[in-house]
Amino acid sequence: MTHPAAVALGVGFRVLAESSTSSAALVVPDCPVGECSDPQAVSAFAAGCDVMTFDHEHVPQALLQSLEGAGTVVRPGSRALLHAQDKLRMRSELTAAGIACPRWRAVRDLAELEEFGREVGLPVVLKTPRGGYDGRGVVFVNKADEARDRFDRLRAEVRDRSGHADALLAEEMIEFDRELAVLVARSPSGQAAAWPVVQTVQADGMCSEVVAPAPDLPVALAGQATRTALRLAAHLDVVGVLAVEMFQVTGPDGARSVLVNELAMRPHNSGHWTIDGAVTSQFEQHLRAVLDLPLGSTRARAPWTVMVNVVGGDRPDLYRSYLHVMARDPGVKVHLYGKEVRPGRKIGHVTVCGEDLRDCRDRARHAADFITGVIDS
Amino acid sequence: MTHPAAVALGVGFRVLAESSTSSAALVVPDCPVGECSDPQAVSAFAAGCDVMTFDHEHVPQALLQSLEGAGTVVRPGSRALLHAQDKLRMRSELTAAGIACPRWRAVRDLAELEEFGREVGLPVVLKTPRGGYDGRGVVFVNKADEARDRFDRLRAEVRDRSGHADALLAEEMIEFDRELAVLVARSPSGQAAAWPVVQTVQADGMCSEVVAPAPDLPVALAGQATRTALRLAAHLDVVGVLAVEMFQVTGPDGARSVLVNELAMRPHNSGHWTIDGAVTSQFEQHLRAVLDLPLGSTRARAPWTVMVNVVGGDRPDLYRSYLHVMARDPGVKVHLYGKEVRPGRKIGHVTVCGEDLRDCRDRARHAADFITGVIDS
Repeated sequence: MTHPAAVALGVGFRVLAESSTSSAALVVPDCPVGECSDPQAVSAFAAGCDVMTFDHEHVPQALLQSLEGAGTVVRPGSRALLHAQDKLRMRSELTAAGIACPRWRAVRDLAELEEFGREVGLPVVLKTPRGGYDGRGVVFVNKADEARDRFDRLRAEVRDRSGHADALLAEEMIEFDRELAVLVARSPSGQAAAWPVVQTVQADGMCSEVVAPAPDLPVALAGQATRTALRLAAHLDVVGVLAVEMFQVTGPDGARSVLVNELAMRPHNSGHWTIDGAVTSQFEQHLRAVLDLPLGSTRARAPWTVMVNVVGGDRPDLYRSYLHVMARDPGVKVHLYGKEVRPGRKIGHVTVCGEDLRDCRDRARHAADFITGVIDS
Repeated sequence: MTHPAAVALGVGFRVLAESSTSSAALVVPDCPVGECSDPQAVSAFAAGCDVMTFDHEHVPQALLQSLEGAGTVVRPGSRALLHAQDKLRMRSELTAAGIACPRWRAVRDLAELEEFGREVGLPVVLKTPRGGYDGRGVVFVNKADEARDRFDRLRAEVRDRSGHADALLAEEMIEFDRELAVLVARSPSGQAAAWPVVQTVQADGMCSEVVAPAPDLPVALAGQATRTALRLAAHLDVVGVLAVEMFQVTGPDGARSVLVNELAMRPHNSGHWTIDGAVTSQFEQHLRAVLDLPLGSTRARAPWTVMVNVVGGDRPDLYRSYLHVMARDPGVKVHLYGKEVRPGRKIGHVTVCGEDLRDCRDRARHAADFITGVIDS
């Protein structure tokens, strides 16, 4: 999705793809194949780039640092990116900066987890500090007698992946009103821009729907959320797009506020609505930011934009239902990623912009559900 | 510009490019190089396509017909495309269908041109029936003693190109109020859709600016223009996008009407505003139409959209001015085509959408003029 933005900007663009059948390889001419953890592949790739950036967090820190040491311009830099790679580092940095988060603890053994559970109450959310996404690497400890099993399971997952047994991140379970996300972009020169705060809806630990702007969001709360994200971008020296996922909560006194949940330092699912719904898409803005070009307007193009993910189901061939959706609603924007359908896999998204929120939401949900076969009329 | 639309639709897309440094070759992975008039290159290219379409009119009829004879799906078909390739065929077909045009004549020699000039009055516009664009292949006979020189010059141009001396097209010079364009799309199944009528502004025989919708256009005239374009699309059996350039004229009785000037059967400069300004761009719609997918909404995204072409000047390096424009106006959408700057060459366009026409126009003109160095503040 970054390629069309690069084309319009007239920017040379190349991608290191994980395979020759990946989405990027289907559409980008200059698309060598290699592992993002392979120093040789990444260094060879970097040699052809003025600036290097990422669409995920999986490039190892040691590799990033050696690239930087060799003079490659890496944006965001390794020091910033660490906070999107390691949730424990992120939590401690945010806490030190006085940014509101759920209560949390680094737990190295069962006893520490149990102690944290007694302090904040169950359920507790247990996360692998690195490598989790879309609900992976997260378990819930709902009852005291689940703690051992959950801890051991996640610890084993970490050990399998990294070979050593780091601490896990335990967090209190937040009773939130809803989830919000703030997308901002920041340039090396410090220019920053924020899109309107959006509401995100999760299903099975994965983003399913985004509404822009977040409905009925008090101006003061929107301001608080936006300032938090901009402050974070500056504090962590982020360059590029930063997505800050937040919980909206209501305190015992009825006051509403936001707590920071997760960070991503790249174009993010919560910003896909910007392709059709904002003057500047997150993909164009990410390029502008990492290339230190002036940032574009983040204004919404319509009063409401609703984005719904298209998640693979049992039906492998979506062509008929895709046709039906196009014929039924000429105003829906369908984006398919050229990925093979697998149950639970994000294979595209649909966007509807308009004047009426309910209408946009109904149409976007219908289109997404119809394409994948969740509904058939 | 069609590539991003193909990416979002999840459609496989390949381009036969005239050179390895053409705009398409820079951004499309599957982009063999070959001459569009070379039967072998075109046939080999067609073998890998389910549907073949065009971004210009220069593929020879004989080649199109032989492709169709061999079973290639060519859209628009050769019979339709002939009317965008040959202005004499276009004029006679339109006249037979009762569609209002400037008065015209096929002139084979100077005597016929002089006779036509006496009938309709000077100036007369003299055109090569094939191969002209952006002001090329067009001369004006302003005074009787210019007729011989102009006729011979254009006749020689035709002979150089095609090897034989076809008739030229002579047309009365229209005193128009302004120029309009209607962009429509039509599917093989007959579904058709029209975008709002736009006003086009020409400079040096080349489109310089497009305003969507055409300001102060009476509803009845918009209806007449749109019906004319839709009728033409059906009458000529066009598949894909059809751009109909028109003159708005006022009769001696004060009644306003439109005359058809030129046709193009492909995404057209008068439709570049749709990328940022309409729910469905002309590039996406062209793909939908030629693939017989249901057509998308042609609704404007904003009250006004102004598109201004970026035309190369003397300054070869536009980077500094491009930066300045982005910094000055975060809401302007700059599209660069990756073409080397040459004086008079279209190298990109800028688009501004908004609520206020004067504001949009001022900003778009400023951005285009600043990028190329026409103005420096």
